[in-house]
Amino acid sequence: MTTTYQVAGAQIDIRWGDVDHNIRRMREVVRSTAEQGVLLTVFPEAAVSGYCFDNLDEARPYSSTIPGPSTDRLADICKEFQTYLVAGMLESDGDQIFNAAVLVGPEGVIGSYRKIHLPFLGIDRFAAPGNRPFQVWNAGPIRVGIHICYDGSFPESARVMAVQGADLIVLPTNWPPKSECAAEHLANIRAHENNLYYMCVNRVGEERGFRFIGGSKICDPSGETIASAQGTDESVFVATIDLEKARRKRLIRVPGKHEINRIADRRPEMYGPLVERIDSGPNSRQTGTSSD
Amino acid sequence: MTTTYQVAGAQIDIRWGDVDHNIRRMREVVRSTAEQGVLLTVFPEAAVSGYCFDNLDEARPYSSTIPGPSTDRLADICKEFQTYLVAGMLESDGDQIFNAAVLVGPEGVIGSYRKIHLPFLGIDRFAAPGNRPFQVWNAGPIRVGIHICYDGSFPESARVMAVQGADLIVLPTNWPPKSECAAEHLANIRAHENNLYYMCVNRVGEERGFRFIGGSKICDPSGETIASAQGTDESVFVATIDLEKARRKRLIRVPGKHEINRIADRRPEMYGPLVERIDSGPNSRQTGTSSD
Repeated sequence: MTTTYQVAGAQIDIRWGDVDHNIRRMREVVRSTAEQGVLLTVFPEAAVSGYCFDNLDEARPYSSTIPGPSTDRLADICKEFQTYLVAGMLESDGDQIFNAAVLVGPEGVIGSYRKIHLPFLGIDRFAAPGNRPFQVWNAGPIRVGIHICYDGSFPESARVMAVQGADLIVLPTNWPPKSECAAEHLANIRAHENNLYYMCVNRVGEERGFRFIGGSKICDPSGETIASAQGTDESVFVATIDLEKARRKRLIRVPGKHEINRIADRRPEMYGPLVERIDSGPNSRQTGTSSD
Repeated sequence: MTTTYQVAGAQIDIRWGDVDHNIRRMREVVRSTAEQGVLLTVFPEAAVSGYCFDNLDEARPYSSTIPGPSTDRLADICKEFQTYLVAGMLESDGDQIFNAAVLVGPEGVIGSYRKIHLPFLGIDRFAAPGNRPFQVWNAGPIRVGIHICYDGSFPESARVMAVQGADLIVLPTNWPPKSECAAEHLANIRAHENNLYYMCVNRVGEERGFRFIGGSKICDPSGETIASAQGTDESVFVATIDLEKARRKRLIRVPGKHEINRIADRRPEMYGPLVERIDSGPNSRQTGTSSD
């Protein structure tokens, strides 16, 4: 039984507030990747709507429920080409808007994620913070963990999904300038430390004065870059992933002399401060934001 | 009041089982860095003893208590040059040996750390797992967090010390081949995600067939490399760090439009799986080591 599959990252521009255009564009990309045998295509954060909204009311017309009109159209694409996709979109839920990403397949919505770590930027200034745990879903045989943009700066995010058994963690993102360090190093280290495939998909282009820097790539469980987008141009890249490599956490370097397992060798009993609230100290959550 | 200080990383070769030679070599390095105004010099993992021991009894003669004969000599060096150092050493405690690192200053031992994450490699195959929490100590004005080698693959390690208020996290290490990803990307991401200075100090040379790959460097809180060692040669690098930059976690990119704080924006209530034992799932701690 094969354990290798093709996945793609679509580093594209997004048209602000033009849902119809953006979904039609996604269909073009998926038609092309599916023709190449790709099982899962990943799009940037807020790929359905754009990102730089100045308040909730402005964003509302471009948001929708999950499932809802936008995911129905994404599901039609997946059905037409018998494939899976992950795309960022604004999710409306009553009066709230979440910065979300959906995993959709031929059968419809498989899973959705609400961005947990919100920077003060774009729609995230007004969006509701994600209120559901990090989770791993099945895109066919691939166990996919989803988080979004700023979540990537929090190693806890990917770690939780790795512990849950993700084969591939995807990060749809809208990285602006000053995210160069993330574009250059993040996917490599997240893949390496969790021994799994890790794909960042940033957008390119500009919205209301905010430029997006591209730099999308996918790394294998050793932390090596196996495919990447071209600079700050639109670019769709395809990589072959081997689920067996992500699942084989035990790495035997030299039999009897050198062996590691970056998940099993964790020592959770030493990580208390990561989940407990620290009520003193200069960087406690209570005092951190008002420290200067 | 100044908040800038000079720190150094000493990527050197270590002579296996020759404590006297290794400490004399450290003195030479510290004499030189202190002359340049360096406040803290960091040496590799197991810099006092070497690393590739085949059993506890073989390592025992090169281990010592903390404080003890080795740290007394390190303290003499710090006193002579009025400076601080971090060095890896084997710590004996009853029948046990810990892979440890000490922070020593003119006043003697300030703190010591016992490696928490042990790979199956070298003395770590037989050493006792670190049994004290990650901690931050003061090297004069600098709040220093210490962990060792394989700990770097566990983002939880640095994160705990960042939450505790570290300005600079140091990683004395003995990276063998297949650690190239860590050498290239680790310091950048750990610095960036924790918004602090992060220094990896690897050794060079060879021990019993294990070669060490160098690649030491220090990154600033933006994730940029500010100084690094030359390839796989012996190389001592010096960098200026600004404590204010590590302590200013709130980053205002565009006033009113873009602001982040990678410590205060954490959401610990979502990180439960990082500390709870997961009793099911393919990568649970219980089943992970025997999964293949």
